[in-house]
Amino acid sequence: MRTLEWDENNQNLRMIDQRLLPGEFQIVHCSTYEEVALAIRDMVVRGAPAIGVAAAFGLALAAQQSQATNYEQFLSDIQAAADTLRAARPTAVNLSWAIDSLLRKVKESPASVPEMKKFLLEAAQSMADEDVAINRRMAEHGASLIQDGDTIIHHCNTGALATVDWGTALGVIRFAHESGKRIHVLVDETRPRLQGSRLTAWELQQYGIPFDIISDNAAGYFLQTGQAQKVFFGGDRMAANGDVANKIGSYMLALAAYDNHVPVYTVVPTSTIDLTIAHGGLIPIEERSPDEVLGLQFQGQIVAPRGATARNPAFDVTPARLLSGIVTENGVVYPPFTLNLPKVVQNARIE
Amino acid sequence: MRTLEWDENNQNLRMIDQRLLPGEFQIVHCSTYEEVALAIRDMVVRGAPAIGVAAAFGLALAAQQSQATNYEQFLSDIQAAADTLRAARPTAVNLSWAIDSLLRKVKESPASVPEMKKFLLEAAQSMADEDVAINRRMAEHGASLIQDGDTIIHHCNTGALATVDWGTALGVIRFAHESGKRIHVLVDETRPRLQGSRLTAWELQQYGIPFDIISDNAAGYFLQTGQAQKVFFGGDRMAANGDVANKIGSYMLALAAYDNHVPVYTVVPTSTIDLTIAHGGLIPIEERSPDEVLGLQFQGQIVAPRGATARNPAFDVTPARLLSGIVTENGVVYPPFTLNLPKVVQNARIE
Repeated sequence: MRTLEWDENNQNLRMIDQRLLPGEFQIVHCSTYEEVALAIRDMVVRGAPAIGVAAAFGLALAAQQSQATNYEQFLSDIQAAADTLRAARPTAVNLSWAIDSLLRKVKESPASVPEMKKFLLEAAQSMADEDVAINRRMAEHGASLIQDGDTIIHHCNTGALATVDWGTALGVIRFAHESGKRIHVLVDETRPRLQGSRLTAWELQQYGIPFDIISDNAAGYFLQTGQAQKVFFGGDRMAANGDVANKIGSYMLALAAYDNHVPVYTVVPTSTIDLTIAHGGLIPIEERSPDEVLGLQFQGQIVAPRGATARNPAFDVTPARLLSGIVTENGVVYPPFTLNLPKVVQNARIE
Repeated sequence: MRTLEWDENNQNLRMIDQRLLPGEFQIVHCSTYEEVALAIRDMVVRGAPAIGVAAAFGLALAAQQSQATNYEQFLSDIQAAADTLRAARPTAVNLSWAIDSLLRKVKESPASVPEMKKFLLEAAQSMADEDVAINRRMAEHGASLIQDGDTIIHHCNTGALATVDWGTALGVIRFAHESGKRIHVLVDETRPRLQGSRLTAWELQQYGIPFDIISDNAAGYFLQTGQAQKVFFGGDRMAANGDVANKIGSYMLALAAYDNHVPVYTVVPTSTIDLTIAHGGLIPIEERSPDEVLGLQFQGQIVAPRGATARNPAFDVTPARLLSGIVTENGVVYPPFTLNLPKVVQNARIE
């Protein structure tokens, strides 16, 4: 099954519960937009593209829930749902992008309430299909950057689980593997939520791609000893100059690669590129619960002393100067990014 | 009590078991040099200076164990023990330094077996006392680099627990705090063994120094958003040019600080400086068990999928070009390190 998909029989959204992997494979059903917003916030579903599509289905569910009898009432219901969904994860631009693009369409061609309900569900479904198609194209473009024999450092999870299917950076790695290139992946465990060791390692096992998990700390060692030839990660929001907000730790990884002349590629659908933001310093960074840092057990023992506090920013910004290229569904973009990014962004989100 | 000390009544070495902190405070007793070697390998005791002193007591225990009736037999017993102890942790130079310096003294002035036994125990004890005195001097020198109001990022544990007492980098922080400077510490949790969240956070609580634990990944974010003014860590072996092998992750932290014009200081006793090694690339790096990476539970669930493998280098090398200064017991050393380091290394270990 896909990471998230519409359940036609039960008229709800079903998703793989990513909090339980790799220990358990369990499906969650969301029947209301409020449940979708909670699932996004609690990271039942995560990964920028998957969150965007989940939010679109959330809006479709809000439409089905609406008791409105006229267009104005309906629009106001939908807008309330949009606000709730948007607040679930503030950094990922795909989320606002998906919601804004659906809202715009609803406003542009008002119709009867039943027609609108039907339209929003179909729009969410085609967004899901488009995500898969886009990921396939990114995978193919990106795989051309990988040589036979490469060892690749990968951060967070950017695979099928981060998208509807196939993935962004991990999709590239999978495509290279399926094209017959012999590759090895060093999987950053990705503290604090360990999406690397939990999800990426699990996916790589499914695909039969050889890997080793490393603590995020160790990437620098493998880079400085010449044991890695490429770095690939995804992106949650990219500014017009190519600065990219991604999972916390991406910046330090990119710095270490750059310091050792190892190329760094970020793999992002153009929906992740926000041309309205000039540089990465303007991207809001979500800070999550300290429990994600403190709630760890190591060899059966609690890790932090009682009463200890923590800070937990979920993203950092990798400056464009550290990137060798940006892989999109429309091709690989090279510096100067400020000049070249707008060329690949077909649906520029300037409204 | 000290982190490790000689138990006069029981004629053995007692140590705080650092694997159990912060959950449990428990004392381990070692009656043989083999037990000391195991305690070093399994990290009951850790931290370069503490390991050096533990090894010295290990040699003293080997002396007490020896059934030798003449000097040659005794020397051969001691040398076998030295080999076992040296192999317990290959990167830390203090360990070989402590062993070599005792062996040299035994060879230089042969005496009766009972005299030698007495000599080795006294030598280990004075090494322990000297460690405390040296740390106090480093703390005072280093604290002069800290301004009132500084937020300091600290990696691994370099406190009283990493030494006989007082600490290296954390000793500096403690000295600044006790001098009345208002400081805040961002404690790198320090994967894989989490010495930061387990030990450094525990020590900071004892000293009343305010802190937040962060995942190692997050240091870059705090540096790039101007929320940290200094970086301090220790060192396990420093080459003649100032390159320093320290806990895995130090290199990436130093890179992130350097990229944001935040000064990085390493705090090392001169016994950590190995003038026989020209640069950091020549320092052997210990790779530890994959279980340290894989044996993690997060929110009650096992982290890595069954069958996953891991790589686990314990140290990396921070190039000297990223260091603003090196704090030793004989003062702060500034670049050019190749020129200035030999001046502070009074007991150069070139034999």
